[in-house]
Amino acid sequence: MSDHVYKISEVVGTSHKSSDHAIENAVSRARGTLRNMRWYEVAGQRGMIEEDGTIQYQVVLKVGFVIEE
Amino acid sequence: MSDHVYKISEVVGTSHKSSDHAIENAVSRARGTLRNMRWYEVAGQRGMIEEDGTIQYQVVLKVGFVIEE
Amino acid sequence: MSDHVYKISEVVGTSHKSSDHAIENAVSRARGTLRNMRWYEVAGQRGMIEEDGTIQYQVVLKVGFVIEE
Amino acid sequence: MSDHVYKISEVVGTSHKSSDHAIENAVSRARGTLRNMRWYEVAGQRGMIEEDGTIQYQVVLKVGFVIEE
Amino acid sequence: MSDHVYKISEVVGTSHKSSDHAIENAVSRARGTLRNMRWYEVAGQRGMIEEDGTIQYQVVLKVGFVIEE
Amino acid sequence: MSDHVYKISEVVGTSHKSSDHAIENAVSRARGTLRNMRWYEVAGQRGMIEEDGTIQYQVVLKVGFVIEE
Amino acid sequence: MSDHVYKISEVVGTSHKSSDHAIENAVSRARGTLRNMRWYEVAGQRGMIEEDGTIQYQVVLKVGFVIEE
Amino acid sequence: MSDHVYKISEVVGTSHKSSDHAIENAVSRARGTLRNMRWYEVAGQRGMIEEDGTIQYQVVLKVGFVIEE
Amino acid sequence: MSDHVYKISEVVGTSHKSSDHAIENAVSRARGTLRNMRWYEVAGQRGMIEEDGTIQYQVVLKVGFVIEE
Amino acid sequence: MSDHVYKISEVVGTSHKSSDHAIENAVSRARGTLRNMRWYEVAGQRGMIEEDGTIQYQVVLKVGFVIEE
Amino acid sequence: MSDHVYKISEVVGTSHKSSDHAIENAVSRARGTLRNMRWYEVAGQRGMIEEDGTIQYQVVLKVGFVIEE
Amino acid sequence: MSDHVYKISEVVGTSHKSSDHAIENAVSRARGTLRNMRWYEVAGQRGMIEEDGTIQYQVVLKVGFVIEE
Repeated sequence: MSDHVYKISEVVGTSHKSSDHAIENAVSRARGTLRNMRWYEVAGQRGMIEEDGTIQYQVVLKVGFVIEE
Repeated sequence: MSDHVYKISEVVGTSHKSSDHAIENAVSRARGTLRNMRWYEVAGQRGMIEEDGTIQYQVVLKVGFVIEE
Repeated sequence: MSDHVYKISEVVGTSHKSSDHAIENAVSRARGTLRNMRWYEVAGQRGMIEEDGTIQYQVVLKVGFVIEE
Repeated sequence: MSDHVYKISEVVGTSHKSSDHAIENAVSRARGTLRNMRWYEVAGQRGMIEEDGTIQYQVVLKVGFVIEE
Repeated sequence: MSDHVYKISEVVGTSHKSSDHAIENAVSRARGTLRNMRWYEVAGQRGMIEEDGTIQYQVVLKVGFVIEE
Repeated sequence: MSDHVYKISEVVGTSHKSSDHAIENAVSRARGTLRNMRWYEVAGQRGMIEEDGTIQYQVVLKVGFVIEE
Repeated sequence: MSDHVYKISEVVGTSHKSSDHAIENAVSRARGTLRNMRWYEVAGQRGMIEEDGTIQYQVVLKVGFVIEE
Repeated sequence: MSDHVYKISEVVGTSHKSSDHAIENAVSRARGTLRNMRWYEVAGQRGMIEEDGTIQYQVVLKVGFVIEE
Repeated sequence: MSDHVYKISEVVGTSHKSSDHAIENAVSRARGTLRNMRWYEVAGQRGMIEEDGTIQYQVVLKVGFVIEE
Repeated sequence: MSDHVYKISEVVGTSHKSSDHAIENAVSRARGTLRNMRWYEVAGQRGMIEEDGTIQYQVVLKVGFVIEE
Repeated sequence: MSDHVYKISEVVGTSHKSSDHAIENAVSRARGTLRNMRWYEVAGQRGMIEEDGTIQYQVVLKVGFVIEE
Repeated sequence: MSDHVYKISEVVGTSHKSSDHAIENAVSRARGTLRNMRWYEVAGQRGMIEEDGTIQYQVVLKVGFVIEE
């Protein structure tokens, strides 16, 4: 196991479908700019409630990725 | 953005179907008595395990709503 | 196990006798207005110290009860 | 010191002027419905940033008041 | 309600399907060795991100069960 | 002071008498299976409220004991 | 209500009798050196388990007192 | 409400004038590089005390902004 | 940068004017007895609400200072 | 990446040499009984101070290992 | 003391040698891209345990640096 | 085990050599004024990064000692 240095970025994914989908949205969006993502940790879960009662799930993630040498 | 005052109520939704469904149950039940709900924050996730291994998902929510003038 | 929705209220019981008595005071007082209380969780323990050194025990409780349909 | 039972309510005050003003708004609004308020505790501080950079200060308060006998 | 003594064990369930499925995996696996499981509490949610962006959901649970006399 | 390795187990004691009695129940029950218990730390205090208002005190303990060589 | 400045000291009371007695021991011992004590907050509860299973209750307190002008 | 992905950056604002001014400094400085800032959350408040007793207020903010598509 | 040892004292400043003024009161009062104060960290914010709705702001500070050799 | 279920055990390593050595002692002692250990997380660091000022470093670890099928 | 604005980045250093070496690796790696680093705060300590019992120390750091004007 | 009352003081040790050395500096310095020190708990770990990248390790300790009768 090599002694890498990792960086942790905090992102918030949102979705009208499900909490897990909010995580997927955040991960797939972050993969566009951050290479070598390895893990995430859920740092909070929230939601917005729209006028008709519809829920927007929001998940705060700490995403870890390798800093390229 | 008007300078409203909001109130936060703590509720627990439960469901045998999924964690998100427990959130929906809490939100839709709370909408019956609390008007102008705007957001929630997940304050805890638990579950009961029945004798046959069935899970009841329980989600503790802090729900925010506008105090009507 | 039915899929109820619960509400959590925060109360503070006090007593010059003991910490447990402060809990009992809060629970029995809350039962006057909240029906169907099921559980509590201790969220903090404090006390006031009077001039002669007498202690007033204070216990902060989160009390859970069924929202009646 | 009498052995009262207290209730704690969570409210969010907001203000475009200052953090302290957000607290004052929450306290004075809550005094309209809750009698015998005695203390509060700051449970969180946030803010909204409007398009032109203006800040709306938001303070989450736990407000304690005597339950009337 | 009898005055049982309970033990709490910490387990981590994982799943490529969903967060709830990770909980179910942990509960059903633990039921193989721990009898009389009654409840769990979510103590953390994490995930591994594989090279192609696939997510492995990981949920840390504190599981409570009756200690048999 | 020898350089032992200790293990920490999490248990929940319950009692209809008092919070301290719930601790004693947990400790005396755990002593039946865990030798060389040395200390505990209270990790949470809860209670169940029965229909007639009777309280079952519940105390979550982290119990430390020497791992025998 | 005058605008005093208060100091907070952290002490640990112990007792073989009860948790509340451990609090009383800490408060009455602290009153010997700190004048004008007003309140305390419980910051932790622990215990030592002696060889025969006897418990020494330990309560960590943050004690507040007025700084004399 | 569109399902954006947000990023959260942590910054520290400082000011010799007031805590709120430290927040404003952080927000206005961050707006120079981060577009679409929407909210912040206070994650800590500290201060430096200079030799003559002057205070530099320091506020740690978590700032949220939309990741542009 | 010399390898000093620092001590941290916990104090509570109060003010009817503002939260920042409560901090200033605590710092200037503490400077009377503690030399070489360098920094503080806000550990809590509370307030008392007087009968007419006036607020006394209270800020809990952890103050750090060099232990003189 | 297979969907294993993991268990987390809490142990305390001690050492008169260093904090890292306390970790190593806990890990190597735990490997005697727990197979397939994969990771640990530091949950606390403490120490005992002997009469002559010698320090015994103590590190609380949460150790994760695969539950064998 | 000038009223700078600082940014805080979260990084994870790793090392097979020691916890402090993991910190040094993170700091020296981060200095390659972040100028004007001033301080760090340890936000977590973990480790991986390899098949032969070798430990990889991992330290999560929040690193603070001046935002250049 | 006698029912002593203990006091807890918060100190910060610093060192350019190592984290453990920072602990030792704090303990040996505190032993000059506080008799009967028994234990400490690490409450935080930080560091200053000097211009050339040199690290000053800083460890925040809560030190417990017997209050002499």
